[in-house]
Amino acid sequence: MSTETTIHVPNPHLEKLKEDALYHLALGTGTHNFPAMFGDVKFVCTGGSPSRMKAFISYMTMKLAISSLGCELPNICAATDRYAMYKAGPVLAVSHGIGMSSIAIMLHDVIKLLYHSKCTNVILIRMGTSGGIGLEPGTVVVTRQAVNASFKPELKQIVLGKPVIRKTDLDEKTAAELMECGKELHQFNTVLGNTMCTLDFYEGQARLDGAICSYTEEDKMNYLKAANEAGVKNMEMESAIVAAMCNLSGIRGAVVCVTLLNRLHEDQITSSQDILEEYEERPQKLVGHFIKKCIDKKK
Amino acid sequence: MSTETTIHVPNPHLEKLKEDALYHLALGTGTHNFPAMFGDVKFVCTGGSPSRMKAFISYMTMKLAISSLGCELPNICAATDRYAMYKAGPVLAVSHGIGMSSIAIMLHDVIKLLYHSKCTNVILIRMGTSGGIGLEPGTVVVTRQAVNASFKPELKQIVLGKPVIRKTDLDEKTAAELMECGKELHQFNTVLGNTMCTLDFYEGQARLDGAICSYTEEDKMNYLKAANEAGVKNMEMESAIVAAMCNLSGIRGAVVCVTLLNRLHEDQITSSQDILEEYEERPQKLVGHFIKKCIDKKK
Repeated sequence: MSTETTIHVPNPHLEKLKEDALYHLALGTGTHNFPAMFGDVKFVCTGGSPSRMKAFISYMTMKLAISSLGCELPNICAATDRYAMYKAGPVLAVSHGIGMSSIAIMLHDVIKLLYHSKCTNVILIRMGTSGGIGLEPGTVVVTRQAVNASFKPELKQIVLGKPVIRKTDLDEKTAAELMECGKELHQFNTVLGNTMCTLDFYEGQARLDGAICSYTEEDKMNYLKAANEAGVKNMEMESAIVAAMCNLSGIRGAVVCVTLLNRLHEDQITSSQDILEEYEERPQKLVGHFIKKCIDKKK
Repeated sequence: MSTETTIHVPNPHLEKLKEDALYHLALGTGTHNFPAMFGDVKFVCTGGSPSRMKAFISYMTMKLAISSLGCELPNICAATDRYAMYKAGPVLAVSHGIGMSSIAIMLHDVIKLLYHSKCTNVILIRMGTSGGIGLEPGTVVVTRQAVNASFKPELKQIVLGKPVIRKTDLDEKTAAELMECGKELHQFNTVLGNTMCTLDFYEGQARLDGAICSYTEEDKMNYLKAANEAGVKNMEMESAIVAAMCNLSGIRGAVVCVTLLNRLHEDQITSSQDILEEYEERPQKLVGHFIKKCIDKKK
């Protein structure tokens, strides 16, 4: 019995393309042999910053004992500075920039890349930073559902000028396995909960310290408390589109974010660089452990 | 009679901050002397790509005959890889990434930076690439109004879970002066018109070549033609928030984008790298000419 899950690309027009130029990744089916380059990818790991993705792939190279012959792994998208991409064995690490619009371009292109490469059984995990609500800074949140600013697990996208609503549940099995990994690692607190995905970092997340703010501290606290009561553990800016696009393309999607601060206490990120760097490594450690475990299980 | 226009920061809470940490720029009032570093800034120029901003500042250094003593100008935000920032005399060049969420963080932080630096009479110009509608590729569009997916000059933002509508007119005087500069340069076609600002590059701009597409080619063409008839000259992903935030902070805002393709004919960007690079230099040339003219006028 085959349990291979292929990538689903819900776009009938793609078949008509003679070649597919992935402009923002500086890759294309006419210029690159996708199955040879990417056919073995099983894990797509993504985070905002290019340098963090580079650090993650070095970490995975070590963790999976993949020799890179003492060389630095190259940035596969070096011909552009929009996104950075690295590969170590079955792990592809891609940066996504900031916000849903930025990550959506990368996701469209990477999903097509996986499809053209005939990849199977792919898991996609966003590893990021976030603002926590009622959690000790440094807590890692595994997202159950991405929710909108009204705390609903929905993403409204505009297609040809009209709203389309998409569901934003993340993959339940992957989330449970990641939580299990958190227990095994036992190095930091890992919680399962909902993540609010906003379009704006300041007004969208009820901060008082942006260039523009028209509400009071009381309004802010009421909103954050309402979010907390609705099960929101943290806020970031990409989870909803990760969930929506993974659901539509048959990819198991997960979001793992560390909280850099507790938004019930503060707006500005003021921890020292050392502490922030250690926090930022936590999602990478959790995901690294998860990937190693998945690979060992198949041996 | 003084005609100095100061930066307006519509946020009463800012006064209460002891220091302001601009986390995403790796700058702060507690660690950097903003008035000394940025007090003379009159032009903020922004574009998606960090390397394009670096190229632009080199170009401006030459154009304004500002000596950098043979050294490369440093990236002022080198401690982070979220955004890159360069300065040459009165010109600040900052990268903004892709999409409104990404540019909004930079704009919040740069507006606060200008405010803390006590800058006056600032003009902010986004220079970018875009998809043209009914225009020869390579045409430069100076934006009159940024419009939404229903072709209205409005931006809906979500603040504390509730919609807030903001106006998205760009500064009329700056647009007229930029058009005048286009005539003087006489190197490429420059047009004045409306720019549609979308959250998504594929479905949001009626492309048929994303990973997900649920409409027909006819639907696509009807939508693009309706946009064209409504005065939309091009589509990109940042103009609306530039307009809204400049309007709220008393900064003269402008958007100058080159079109890389004519969306009535194609979806994919397939021009050669050389041609694309020459196109991408056009907004920089126009803005460079504009800045030089403004400075010469004051002498």
